[in-house]
Amino acid sequence: MKLLQSDIDRIIRTALEEDITYVDVTTDYLLPDDHTSSAYYVAKDDGVIAGLSVAARVFELAGGDVTFEAKVRDGDLVKRGDIIAVMQGNTQTLLKGERTALNLLQHMSGIATATHTCVQLVAHTNAKITDTRKTLPGLRRIQKYAVTVGGGYNHRYNLSEGAMLKDNHIDVYGGITPAVEALRRRIGHMTKIEVEVRTLEELREALACKCEIIMLDNMSPETMREAVQITDGRALLEASGNVTQENIASIAETGVDIISLGALTHSVKCFDISMKFDK
Amino acid sequence: MKLLQSDIDRIIRTALEEDITYVDVTTDYLLPDDHTSSAYYVAKDDGVIAGLSVAARVFELAGGDVTFEAKVRDGDLVKRGDIIAVMQGNTQTLLKGERTALNLLQHMSGIATATHTCVQLVAHTNAKITDTRKTLPGLRRIQKYAVTVGGGYNHRYNLSEGAMLKDNHIDVYGGITPAVEALRRRIGHMTKIEVEVRTLEELREALACKCEIIMLDNMSPETMREAVQITDGRALLEASGNVTQENIASIAETGVDIISLGALTHSVKCFDISMKFDK
Amino acid sequence: MKLLQSDIDRIIRTALEEDITYVDVTTDYLLPDDHTSSAYYVAKDDGVIAGLSVAARVFELAGGDVTFEAKVRDGDLVKRGDIIAVMQGNTQTLLKGERTALNLLQHMSGIATATHTCVQLVAHTNAKITDTRKTLPGLRRIQKYAVTVGGGYNHRYNLSEGAMLKDNHIDVYGGITPAVEALRRRIGHMTKIEVEVRTLEELREALACKCEIIMLDNMSPETMREAVQITDGRALLEASGNVTQENIASIAETGVDIISLGALTHSVKCFDISMKFDK
Amino acid sequence: MKLLQSDIDRIIRTALEEDITYVDVTTDYLLPDDHTSSAYYVAKDDGVIAGLSVAARVFELAGGDVTFEAKVRDGDLVKRGDIIAVMQGNTQTLLKGERTALNLLQHMSGIATATHTCVQLVAHTNAKITDTRKTLPGLRRIQKYAVTVGGGYNHRYNLSEGAMLKDNHIDVYGGITPAVEALRRRIGHMTKIEVEVRTLEELREALACKCEIIMLDNMSPETMREAVQITDGRALLEASGNVTQENIASIAETGVDIISLGALTHSVKCFDISMKFDK
Amino acid sequence: MKLLQSDIDRIIRTALEEDITYVDVTTDYLLPDDHTSSAYYVAKDDGVIAGLSVAARVFELAGGDVTFEAKVRDGDLVKRGDIIAVMQGNTQTLLKGERTALNLLQHMSGIATATHTCVQLVAHTNAKITDTRKTLPGLRRIQKYAVTVGGGYNHRYNLSEGAMLKDNHIDVYGGITPAVEALRRRIGHMTKIEVEVRTLEELREALACKCEIIMLDNMSPETMREAVQITDGRALLEASGNVTQENIASIAETGVDIISLGALTHSVKCFDISMKFDK
Amino acid sequence: MKLLQSDIDRIIRTALEEDITYVDVTTDYLLPDDHTSSAYYVAKDDGVIAGLSVAARVFELAGGDVTFEAKVRDGDLVKRGDIIAVMQGNTQTLLKGERTALNLLQHMSGIATATHTCVQLVAHTNAKITDTRKTLPGLRRIQKYAVTVGGGYNHRYNLSEGAMLKDNHIDVYGGITPAVEALRRRIGHMTKIEVEVRTLEELREALACKCEIIMLDNMSPETMREAVQITDGRALLEASGNVTQENIASIAETGVDIISLGALTHSVKCFDISMKFDK
Repeated sequence: MKLLQSDIDRIIRTALEEDITYVDVTTDYLLPDDHTSSAYYVAKDDGVIAGLSVAARVFELAGGDVTFEAKVRDGDLVKRGDIIAVMQGNTQTLLKGERTALNLLQHMSGIATATHTCVQLVAHTNAKITDTRKTLPGLRRIQKYAVTVGGGYNHRYNLSEGAMLKDNHIDVYGGITPAVEALRRRIGHMTKIEVEVRTLEELREALACKCEIIMLDNMSPETMREAVQITDGRALLEASGNVTQENIASIAETGVDIISLGALTHSVKCFDISMKFDK
Repeated sequence: MKLLQSDIDRIIRTALEEDITYVDVTTDYLLPDDHTSSAYYVAKDDGVIAGLSVAARVFELAGGDVTFEAKVRDGDLVKRGDIIAVMQGNTQTLLKGERTALNLLQHMSGIATATHTCVQLVAHTNAKITDTRKTLPGLRRIQKYAVTVGGGYNHRYNLSEGAMLKDNHIDVYGGITPAVEALRRRIGHMTKIEVEVRTLEELREALACKCEIIMLDNMSPETMREAVQITDGRALLEASGNVTQENIASIAETGVDIISLGALTHSVKCFDISMKFDK
Repeated sequence: MKLLQSDIDRIIRTALEEDITYVDVTTDYLLPDDHTSSAYYVAKDDGVIAGLSVAARVFELAGGDVTFEAKVRDGDLVKRGDIIAVMQGNTQTLLKGERTALNLLQHMSGIATATHTCVQLVAHTNAKITDTRKTLPGLRRIQKYAVTVGGGYNHRYNLSEGAMLKDNHIDVYGGITPAVEALRRRIGHMTKIEVEVRTLEELREALACKCEIIMLDNMSPETMREAVQITDGRALLEASGNVTQENIASIAETGVDIISLGALTHSVKCFDISMKFDK
Repeated sequence: MKLLQSDIDRIIRTALEEDITYVDVTTDYLLPDDHTSSAYYVAKDDGVIAGLSVAARVFELAGGDVTFEAKVRDGDLVKRGDIIAVMQGNTQTLLKGERTALNLLQHMSGIATATHTCVQLVAHTNAKITDTRKTLPGLRRIQKYAVTVGGGYNHRYNLSEGAMLKDNHIDVYGGITPAVEALRRRIGHMTKIEVEVRTLEELREALACKCEIIMLDNMSPETMREAVQITDGRALLEASGNVTQENIASIAETGVDIISLGALTHSVKCFDISMKFDK
Repeated sequence: MKLLQSDIDRIIRTALEEDITYVDVTTDYLLPDDHTSSAYYVAKDDGVIAGLSVAARVFELAGGDVTFEAKVRDGDLVKRGDIIAVMQGNTQTLLKGERTALNLLQHMSGIATATHTCVQLVAHTNAKITDTRKTLPGLRRIQKYAVTVGGGYNHRYNLSEGAMLKDNHIDVYGGITPAVEALRRRIGHMTKIEVEVRTLEELREALACKCEIIMLDNMSPETMREAVQITDGRALLEASGNVTQENIASIAETGVDIISLGALTHSVKCFDISMKFDK
Repeated sequence: MKLLQSDIDRIIRTALEEDITYVDVTTDYLLPDDHTSSAYYVAKDDGVIAGLSVAARVFELAGGDVTFEAKVRDGDLVKRGDIIAVMQGNTQTLLKGERTALNLLQHMSGIATATHTCVQLVAHTNAKITDTRKTLPGLRRIQKYAVTVGGGYNHRYNLSEGAMLKDNHIDVYGGITPAVEALRRRIGHMTKIEVEVRTLEELREALACKCEIIMLDNMSPETMREAVQITDGRALLEASGNVTQENIASIAETGVDIISLGALTHSVKCFDISMKFDK
């Protein structure tokens, strides 16, 4: 699974240009142009690595005269102290690219690690973990990619890809049924429709409309369990709202098919990695 | 304090185009083009708001037919349940801009809130809270802005703005003294030099070179206290590394001038805000 | 239904900058800066208009000092000789924007007109007309929009939005069944899967896999009719390949649900419109 | 004759990003990252090929791990069934680039083929076939290139390159003579002036002004023949308006120097090419 | 004569973003957001003003809350001490846009002033003053515009607009005659051909080929005078190479039609203007 | 010292696209695609070369099939007639890149040469030569780089990098002291503050505030000399305003630390270099 190179490059160039307006006044003024070094990435915590090809690409765009050898692959679990990659080449390039590469790699690995934790917590159930559209501006591609590296699944990419009827849409149309019918009259045959319900009554209406996917919004585990029984396989059920690492197992055990977490991408704890230079 | 409109617009356009490849298949197919609604932002937690003009601008670029009236200002403290802003206008625009505006406002307010907490924790000392270059790609401008909204200060914006001699630079030159001298020979008169030291011995060497700012890297509070005594006002001292909300007060109490925290921008917990539509 | 303004503006700016490298050497050198004129669009043929807001926007970006009053709306049928819009304002702007606006409006109206013709030809059946990914580079948004204006539906927007298993994917996996199963293990719950089949045997296999949408590739009307009977409502059937205005009715009469035509967007005959200046 | 690489790349990147928002959900989820295939382009019709280097470049920008060997050259005539190019390499790249490459190659070859047909139809005369500014937004460069590949000539690239006095300009100045004089007072010495005339009287006025090029707008062949006699080599004559493959020979036989056709670029019938994978 | 707004805006945005990476650390930190001021431009020298609308636009893009009233128009002669424009509005915007607006206005006025001087020096002859392609990267549009404001004419805009046969092209083809013939076989009818000659013999060959424009490269005034006699109106003659304000009158007096000066755009002396704030 | 490749590439692509809208109508129509040539740069004057890697990169982006071998390095002094670089490869690429490469190299070398002259004129003093923000839009990076190549130093890069209190800021705050204090309360610890003074009284106030850098605006050498005595090393002093090659030595001899010249970048005389093709 590979993102389009031009998309990745745009993110990296934006980041490098944020970090270097003109020159690196420390490195450019101090180091000889042909000075070389070796360096390596070491994990400062346990987790799942994501973004190695992005980090490697940073050094290509920051100067191009550095080799980058990954010691693990995206999706691998690392332990504190593990070597993640080794780099060798022009010291100016290594120093200029250092922060940008780490900012990306640590962010993506943080997402993969958190996703992996959630996936493990529900591994005894059939529930799948998915992301949401609560992503950071400009970074959706690499955030959603990191979720899959951590073992999660991607919800719809954006507003163009799938239809979600939320309570506001429904209110305008006077109920789930007319809204679903109206949407079906215009939507393309490749687009799925998901409907958000807040009560079991709404669930029954959505099922009557033969909705393929139904989102249970902020329901208690007990209500969700009941919803699963009512649905009985006639639709996919998605649990959403206030999901935490503490309650995720009990939500999964209700029998829902999908659990979506905004926090996977909107409140990322970066995964700690250090770049060390060999003496 | 205002960011350049073209910079803000670029971030918002990138985010909107991430969220809408073609049309919003729910909203565009379901709602009449001239449907209007009222909506409002409500705080779901206590914190500091940042990014209101950015959120307002999202709706202008998403359609332009919506009024946005902020009820608080950037930097204001809000309580759970407070109304933050009210919006009125085209429903399609409100729904298309909703997620992008919230993604930005929640992220910025999350940064301002965490910064504010740190600032409060050291309010009984002279220490200033600053950010770092550990920011998220493409978002540095708005992240650094949010730090100031929360009462923090900005460290150097990037590699071009100030010089920081880290151990690697120093090793290449055989010590702090020759590195500082080499740098001073080439650097412009508007650029400050900060030197990173790991021991009190290195601190003394940096002071002997008349360095203006010295970063104490991962020192214990006891060592920092000693460093403050040795320095005796001859340089600004910056504490850096493993600063948390738990230990920040004790670090500040050592007498250091500046405490920098990467987590303010690299591990942001978004501030919870809901957009509600009036029935 | 509205496209994102920034997407439309990018297309228009690209077009204007193609047409004016520096100045308009005729208009800029000849006409006084404050000369004004009235002009109007007149249809030179019968058809469906699409793209009026795009044409209007061209004059805003070409100078901004022109009023544009549409006399019909996107989707309206016009007859040869009908007035489509009237414009009034700066003559330089009218002349600089003329060709770019017409190039867009004529292309979009050509698509809407051809789509409308196909829709009319199958109006006595349940078949829906859809576009494909055979679009012109950079123009997919406005081409797909024009298809909906003409009464057609949009197939998947692109490779990210829906999955289509073609014979090549299937060969790699040793058959439809293992390929569908492999894809279902990784794909998000909002993404539909369409499978291309070339024989009725493959159709039966696809139905056994409970595929939601099946594309009948280049089948004869007789075989399609048989496919409809075999399927019996268990999946949507899409007819594709060598569809023309001559054979589209007979294809629709087989009972297929969807008929897709690449020619709607890859071989567009522009709809003839003239811009006339009032004397 | 080579277009600037950055211009071509911009068109291709735009097209690839239109076709892949995030990942190719079929190919990326199904095929192993290191799967390789061979494929080839085969002509489904007779015509002139244009755009081979553009198609080859698509695969470089879509992944870069594919070889592309053209079997013919731009401008070559191919017959239905001829192999146009063979490709070998990463299957994901071949599938991701397939549609974008074909969309470009088929469009450009369609233009070259139609131009070639026109050129053949007037080969017994001295008339040259040219394009117009009636091009598709964003594609003018590759459309005009394709016209030359088909044996045609390029009219002025855009409004900045040559001056064309149309009836509207002329009306403002009270006639051809004052308009031509006004323009000559300000225009650079490298810019040619073409004047549009609707009658033989206007033609005589334009000749009296020593205009270098005169466009005969929508004249009958008989009138054009008379115009040729009147002109007697004192200016180049361009026939324009309602030129079709049916009447182009009789227009050329009037003795005009240039025949321009908007349809070459505004109503392109794509040239049918298939990409086949080797089993 | 107006440049395309999107072209101007791109230049201004680039300039503003060069000057403001993040915030204006003086103005943003010091001045209240709602502080207003009045300011004005005063000429510090005598010359021709060019670029007033560009300067005005800078303040719109830098904040938008400033009025700009030009007291003169592009092309007007000003004397040292003349007020050029007055501005009123937000002080932050005035200060943030100040340098960018002046950098553009001073550069453009410098070009217009130098061009005007040359035009005056040859006013007693028929020679026209033109620019060249020796422009500064990214600024060609506004530089060429400024030349026309100063009374000069534009040579070909770029390599796409007109053909110039230089000695290198000619050498490849074994002489002027075959090169001109080869070029005429392929070039569009709207493109002029200029030929560079170094000797009177080459001039005679170029005239025999009926070249429309001939560039006399680095010839002495005496040789140019002879060239004018030989040519006798059969072609336009352009003098080029080492033209200065000292020798331009004597060159013009030889009877050449055009004198081109690279220095008008490659070695610009900026015209001194001050922005003063009212107390 | 190396600029970021993406920044350089953006400048070059902008310049190439300015110079080639479509094709090079001379070179593309005349020369065979595989024609090769050798060429070289020769200095037409004495000076300091800057921008060789930029010039080399132009040919890579203009076609990529040319070798470029620099015979000198940035910062080297050359004499009239010296060979600066030799190129070999595709003739079309050499001709298409020729003007863009020279425009950049001549401009940058012109800046380096003028800077070098100033540096030589003050070599007997301790004064450093610096640039200003009076740069040409879009070219600041390469202009400031060229200043350092010529032996000068860079003043603050832009409004974000260092604070400068000018008289207008000061007036708003009722004097230097309150303005400096207000700024110090908000500014980051890595940002220096420079204060502009017009009288010795203001100088004394600025010194009392412990300002690090003080700009002496348009003072006479005598006043500057007195300022140096008053300051006595307590701050850096910058002379600014009306500095010329005639008076720069006498200014430097007053003992000021820094002399800044806007003319280094706003009124550049390009350094004359010719590109010659081998016969």
